[in-house]
Amino acid sequence: MTTTTPALAAPSAGAAFERVQIERRDLRPDDVRIDIRWAGICHTDIHITREEWGGTLYPLTPGHEILGTVTEVGADVTDHAVGDVVGVGCLVDSCGECEPCRDGEEQYCLKGAVQTYGQEDYHGEITKGGYSGEVVVRDHFVVKVPDSYDEADYAGVTPLLCAGITTYHPLKEAGVGPGSRVGVIGLGGLGHVAVKIAAAMGAEVTVLSRTDSKKQDGMSFGAQDFRATEDGTAFEELAGSFDLLVNTVGSGIPLDSYMGLLDRGGVLANVGAPEDSLQVSAFSLLANRRSIRGNMIGGLPEHQEMLDFCAEHGITATVEVIDAGQVDDYYDKVVAGDVRYRAVIDTATLAG
Amino acid sequence: MTTTTPALAAPSAGAAFERVQIERRDLRPDDVRIDIRWAGICHTDIHITREEWGGTLYPLTPGHEILGTVTEVGADVTDHAVGDVVGVGCLVDSCGECEPCRDGEEQYCLKGAVQTYGQEDYHGEITKGGYSGEVVVRDHFVVKVPDSYDEADYAGVTPLLCAGITTYHPLKEAGVGPGSRVGVIGLGGLGHVAVKIAAAMGAEVTVLSRTDSKKQDGMSFGAQDFRATEDGTAFEELAGSFDLLVNTVGSGIPLDSYMGLLDRGGVLANVGAPEDSLQVSAFSLLANRRSIRGNMIGGLPEHQEMLDFCAEHGITATVEVIDAGQVDDYYDKVVAGDVRYRAVIDTATLAG
Repeated sequence: MTTTTPALAAPSAGAAFERVQIERRDLRPDDVRIDIRWAGICHTDIHITREEWGGTLYPLTPGHEILGTVTEVGADVTDHAVGDVVGVGCLVDSCGECEPCRDGEEQYCLKGAVQTYGQEDYHGEITKGGYSGEVVVRDHFVVKVPDSYDEADYAGVTPLLCAGITTYHPLKEAGVGPGSRVGVIGLGGLGHVAVKIAAAMGAEVTVLSRTDSKKQDGMSFGAQDFRATEDGTAFEELAGSFDLLVNTVGSGIPLDSYMGLLDRGGVLANVGAPEDSLQVSAFSLLANRRSIRGNMIGGLPEHQEMLDFCAEHGITATVEVIDAGQVDDYYDKVVAGDVRYRAVIDTATLAG
Repeated sequence: MTTTTPALAAPSAGAAFERVQIERRDLRPDDVRIDIRWAGICHTDIHITREEWGGTLYPLTPGHEILGTVTEVGADVTDHAVGDVVGVGCLVDSCGECEPCRDGEEQYCLKGAVQTYGQEDYHGEITKGGYSGEVVVRDHFVVKVPDSYDEADYAGVTPLLCAGITTYHPLKEAGVGPGSRVGVIGLGGLGHVAVKIAAAMGAEVTVLSRTDSKKQDGMSFGAQDFRATEDGTAFEELAGSFDLLVNTVGSGIPLDSYMGLLDRGGVLANVGAPEDSLQVSAFSLLANRRSIRGNMIGGLPEHQEMLDFCAEHGITATVEVIDAGQVDDYYDKVVAGDVRYRAVIDTATLAG
């Protein structure tokens, strides 16, 4: 017997969200039932809802930034208990047996990790995401929200489940610490979290934004410098001055200009996912032995590590709390870059 | 007072080489005079001679794979002595004071390292390369040919000065060793040396070549597998099976197909320098957190390390020894991929 819960569902690529009731499965022995309190809106939700990457399965209930409270646990669950405040990110299952899974990099599971929404899971069900009142998730894919956060923080903690891990991973992989010179390209949902985390790691952070309209915010998030890129002078003045650039922009940018900002051995970590191919000159790479690196979120152990790190440094995303009825409007605002800096749905408003 | 020496010089972009006499400077206190015995032909020589990258200064004497014997040393030279067999690669000077120079990465000198040919040096002279009987080079940019090589090896040692360091660097940077799974894309001047060095490092090496025409050679160079890529099946069969790909192809390749061959954290080291931009999907990078990395030769300490490594493992390039009069023809053969595997000019034939 399944339970039902209120949710938003997109019926097709062009249509507005509808308020629906969706089913959640009865608990398997390793399942956790979560009463969802907050659900973040990620730009990926929009790409998939609008079928910009192809292959969307409708009706679609998006949402892979989920925070809530455990209300029931399966018989074999030992890591989570009723009443725990927990999070769920982009993944809800993986094989658990392949080398990536054993290494705690479930996102690269050889069987194919199961995305939190819009994908057929290992049991033949289509996953449904966080724009809903409740979710049932395998215990391994549930992370603990550290105790040092209090209830007023929870909306801001929610986006860390995707934006946090997506930016924490490349910063950590690059060994960012005191003295590291990090440039964050784009100050949106991902970028503003990247600035906060990099600053907490001790880096000197520069925001590279198209205009200076977000300068005050960028500095308040922990950046030491903020450069508008639209007039091009930053590319000359900052040439060769970064160890790491985190590109959070989801559309094409003039990569060769940005590569010129990297010092010897510098890395551009590309966490945005533009539809068009990245284009970069071989000469941009061979000069200063630079690289371009990609990553897809992080593994589950790293999710917990990231949340613990953010809790220790008091980091939350800067959010706009919205009602379920505002999601369509906010999709347009996200695309226009008008959200400061992440929209989070108050799931209490789902029943409408 | 300067000395004169026979050389080849290209008078302009479209013209054949001419036999000329060029001048070499009198020794400064830190200079070494070298009687050149062999000069390798690198594809870069062709790009520059034909002005394919723009800005070529004519008349041009190319050549940055140089092997010869020291005939005279300046008053302050202590590292080299008359009679030493030595090599010169792509660089002949750098500031020596900036951070890259102090780190032994002279190729990234902030003042701009001086290329062995075709560039104005710090004294206002245009450098002239190895297609000549003699060269005068600052001592720091001269490396020792290890004693374990004998005279019959010298023609094959010569290409190591560019092709060797260009491929040794990314292999070493990637930590290649026993168990590493290395794919070498293209089996030409760079590729065949990459195979030999990677195999000597203990890696399992696969050659990825357009056709199987060079299969026997590839296996004899130390590869454990050889795949023709033209029918496309290799991309499915070898998906996710390499830690490192060394792309030695100087023209565009379908990068996304090749990226799919990389396992988690895999790196494609691009050592070719195609004129057109590299194009790669962001999704190719984020899957398996892959990267594309560039490098430009290596520093002078690494040149010596590479030569010592090659000597220890008995590695030389596989070469065709040619006369000075064959250089124009061999340029066409290099471009057509018909040289097996590096052409080296016998400089005794320069006087004609």
